[in-house]
Amino acid sequence: MRLYDSAPSGNCYKARLLLTQLDIPFERWAVDTRQRERRGELLGDKNPALRVPVLELDDGRHLAESNAILWYLAGGTRYLPGDPFEQAKTLQWMFFEQYDHEPNVAVVRHRTMLGHLDDHPDSEQRRERGYAALGAMERHLDGLEYFVGDRYSIADIALYAYTHVADEGGFDLADYPAINAWLDRVAAQPGHITIDD
Amino acid sequence: MRLYDSAPSGNCYKARLLLTQLDIPFERWAVDTRQRERRGELLGDKNPALRVPVLELDDGRHLAESNAILWYLAGGTRYLPGDPFEQAKTLQWMFFEQYDHEPNVAVVRHRTMLGHLDDHPDSEQRRERGYAALGAMERHLDGLEYFVGDRYSIADIALYAYTHVADEGGFDLADYPAINAWLDRVAAQPGHITIDD
Repeated sequence: MRLYDSAPSGNCYKARLLLTQLDIPFERWAVDTRQRERRGELLGDKNPALRVPVLELDDGRHLAESNAILWYLAGGTRYLPGDPFEQAKTLQWMFFEQYDHEPNVAVVRHRTMLGHLDDHPDSEQRRERGYAALGAMERHLDGLEYFVGDRYSIADIALYAYTHVADEGGFDLADYPAINAWLDRVAAQPGHITIDD
Repeated sequence: MRLYDSAPSGNCYKARLLLTQLDIPFERWAVDTRQRERRGELLGDKNPALRVPVLELDDGRHLAESNAILWYLAGGTRYLPGDPFEQAKTLQWMFFEQYDHEPNVAVVRHRTMLGHLDDHPDSEQRRERGYAALGAMERHLDGLEYFVGDRYSIADIALYAYTHVADEGGFDLADYPAINAWLDRVAAQPGHITIDD
């Protein structure tokens, strides 16, 4: 398989992490996402939304959206619960991640890394909403080991990707003990790789 | 089943539409989402993200996130393809909907309906991004009848919800012939109800 990839992207890291844990060989094809005007040329026939990651299967078909890629790869493995309600709860947390978490925690981190956080009038609102998402995670994890069904799953991978680098966006997780314990549990999983690997 | 619901919300309409098409009886429990400070009290034990829709099953368990609810209800029915890759493509379009479409098309509509579109500095950017999402849909639908696998599925329900009322946010769909033909096909499905039903 080939992964259209961007090294600092947590969304791309999700796919790299699960591919590695599933022991599936893959090729990384770096896409420079800062070149917005070239995205149509690079990704137009692979993802209508012109974003990475995109997974190219061995038969040439393409799949986009990080959490849809996780779902596809995890099917029939221990990384996706078998029970239909637990599967739906897994999706609930993955949709939460893309709606409440990523647009806030990841975008603030991205702007911080590029040095133009203060150029955007909505950065403070995104920080507030990022903390609200982290608060929802903290309340849920209180007393639990993992997000769904008491075992490590793609719901954890999806939420780990940008939570474990939230400090790069200036988020302070000192008051989130359940999240910190969970981050350690995820990082201790067999086959774990870091975002920099 | 009970649906924690808001009448003008396209996200809630998705659940009402599929429940009706599946002939599943349900009770609507209206939540006034404008009362932000009461959300914790009303929804705290049902959805950590404090948003509607939330589906309460007959056994008292709760499921949140509109597209996770669609997935759960559609399992094993003709509204979800059986093939794993087509299932993943269905999710790809549903994640696209929540990331690229809803935060732009739905938010601009919401602000327009409340009469404070111009109070938000990012409304124009959201309108641009809304048109970008509609453009991606138009390109994909060219030559296709439905989003995935050439049949009506929950991918269509997810994207129909806010596209068919995009005009209420001032979006002009005159130059989107493939979308208009698809909107008509979705509205002609057996058991279809409108957002006002």
